[in-house]
Amino acid sequence: NDKLKIFSLNSNQSLAQEVADEIGRPLGKCSVKRFSDGEIQINIEESIRGCDVFVIQSTSNPVNDNLMELLIMIDALMRASARTINVVMPYYGYARQDRKARSREPITAKLVANLLEKAGADRVIAIDLHAPQIQGFFDIPIDHLVAEPILTEYFKGKGLEGDDLVIVSPDHGGVTRARKMADRMKAPIAIIDKRRPRPNVAEVMSIVGNVDGKTAILIDDIIDTAGTITIAANAIIESGAKEVYACCTHPVLSGPAIERIDNSRIKELIITNSIELPDNKKSPKIKQLSIAKLLGEAVIRVFEKKSVSTLFD
Amino acid sequence: NDKLKIFSLNSNQSLAQEVADEIGRPLGKCSVKRFSDGEIQINIEESIRGCDVFVIQSTSNPVNDNLMELLIMIDALMRASARTINVVMPYYGYARQDRKARSREPITAKLVANLLEKAGADRVIAIDLHAPQIQGFFDIPIDHLVAEPILTEYFKGKGLEGDDLVIVSPDHGGVTRARKMADRMKAPIAIIDKRRPRPNVAEVMSIVGNVDGKTAILIDDIIDTAGTITIAANAIIESGAKEVYACCTHPVLSGPAIERIDNSRIKELIITNSIELPDNKKSPKIKQLSIAKLLGEAVIRVFEKKSVSTLFD
Ligand SMILES: Nc1ncnc2c1ncn2[C@@H]1O[C@H](COP(=O)(O)O)[C@@H](O)[C@H]1O
Ligand SMILES: Nc1ncnc2c1ncn2[C@@H]1O[C@H](COP(=O)(O)O)[C@@H](O)[C@H]1O
Repeated sequence: NDKLKIFSLNSNQSLAQEVADEIGRPLGKCSVKRFSDGEIQINIEESIRGCDVFVIQSTSNPVNDNLMELLIMIDALMRASARTINVVMPYYGYARQDRKARSREPITAKLVANLLEKAGADRVIAIDLHAPQIQGFFDIPIDHLVAEPILTEYFKGKGLEGDDLVIVSPDHGGVTRARKMADRMKAPIAIIDKRRPRPNVAEVMSIVGNVDGKTAILIDDIIDTAGTITIAANAIIESGAKEVYACCTHPVLSGPAIERIDNSRIKELIITNSIELPDNKKSPKIKQLSIAKLLGEAVIRVFEKKSVSTLFD
Repeated sequence: NDKLKIFSLNSNQSLAQEVADEIGRPLGKCSVKRFSDGEIQINIEESIRGCDVFVIQSTSNPVNDNLMELLIMIDALMRASARTINVVMPYYGYARQDRKARSREPITAKLVANLLEKAGADRVIAIDLHAPQIQGFFDIPIDHLVAEPILTEYFKGKGLEGDDLVIVSPDHGGVTRARKMADRMKAPIAIIDKRRPRPNVAEVMSIVGNVDGKTAILIDDIIDTAGTITIAANAIIESGAKEVYACCTHPVLSGPAIERIDNSRIKELIITNSIELPDNKKSPKIKQLSIAKLLGEAVIRVFEKKSVSTLFD
């Protein structure tokens, strides 16, 4: 077990500490600082020669700094003769740039995969990638975890289950996720259907499925500016739902997100700690659940060369 | 000539415009912005299919943002079927992390080279790399320009030349650069020699060579916090020099640099525009010379498949 080393970079130190505690190993010693001109200075302060090293870093905002920290750390670990370098990315930044939606756009999610591999990563552990296709951007093994069971457990703990409930996907892309939660809670699903009747005419939002008289749970992977989710929540209430919860794995919560959530009909927003929330993004409506146990278990299974997919039962 | 396209990213737009003017081509249209969560959004707004594209970007502070802009741009150009992607980096960030000075350090200058290549760069044009060995970090052609002739011309324009002058290198690593300038000005050289007599005893600075009664010109590649250069300037004056100028290619000028320069015995500091100076780094003592002509000439020669090395005569 002393060949297993866990290091934290700067994006999500409290989660990294929790993961280390789950595993029962201290965080590895390393200093990650800035030179006077803003360049990142990393020094690993203990031998990792021959070890299986796990580096925990979310590439959340400031995404470019966090990504460069990670790449430079991988470079340092590789040169320090790590046996394997396993990158744990609770949040994978640039995941939404996963295709050319218009001509001459980059596919930055693929670029990031290439950069991680080129730097020397041997394996990636990620959670709820915006598109599961991002797994195929890598030529190294990637373990893809899902946080839905953690979110589901929370709602079950509130006694929510069955036909009084409806799980709502905020768009067609998220139906699979909503379907999984619905199965686990023996509840039906509904889908928010947005369409533009004619070009230059405002989008119309309608709800496919029945929410009348029910408790609704909106589930998404990322909540960023919270525009979609708050409009959907309000529409659900207007369609007769008794109350509406929202949940997501990755609380990006940029720009007007907190204000929108506070002013919306959302009763409670459940998120995970894949991204650390700064104090100015906290709100009485927001409850954060930890993915540390899930990540800790995944790290141990990877280290012991056991299957990670059985984590999802 | 319409197969030659020049694009500017955000680090040094005024230099990019000057280079485009030198070449007589407009800057290519592209939008480089931020999403609400800080992720970079690039869209190239004109066809570059089959073109030889030159992207001008210094990876100066904020280095990680500027580097990611560059990598994402390269990815977008590659996917938009550029014939060749030529990266013009007037300032190459992370160049000082070019070796393992201590155990378990990264070699970030090499990592950056790998990232540029992996993203899809076909060629790099750089100026006064901190170590010429960085050329060897690339498996693609790199044109290495020097700004010393531009600096030298400026001093010649002041009538400085010959034996009343001495060119001073602030350390042993910079002697080759000082030697070149000295040859061109028919002047002798001197070297600042720093050593620590015993561990835990303050460094001693002495001057190898004669500066007494002369005008001294200190030359360096990078001036960052300006500690070395201002201490050296003061030592030169104390050793009897009449006056002391300083010059460098890359004005990083971080932290206390401006204050130190203003308070030093340096009469004038000559820099280039490889890095754009924000207004709060301007000082009456600092004079900025343009490298646009040098870069423009290099771009044209690369495009016309002519030798770039003959630029240095
Ligand atoms: N950080 C970001 N913030 C907002 N939109 C983004 C971001 N990154 C990519 N996008 C855009 O979001 C769209 C993909 O989102 P989606 O349709 O939810 O998969 C693409 O058109 C991207 O250009
Ligand atoms: N951005 C930076 N600012 C200050 N020092 C740096 C920076 N990057 C690297 N270094 C250190 O500077 C030393 C190399 O500088 P030099 O001896 O001038 O080649 C190495 O020990 C590096 O760790």
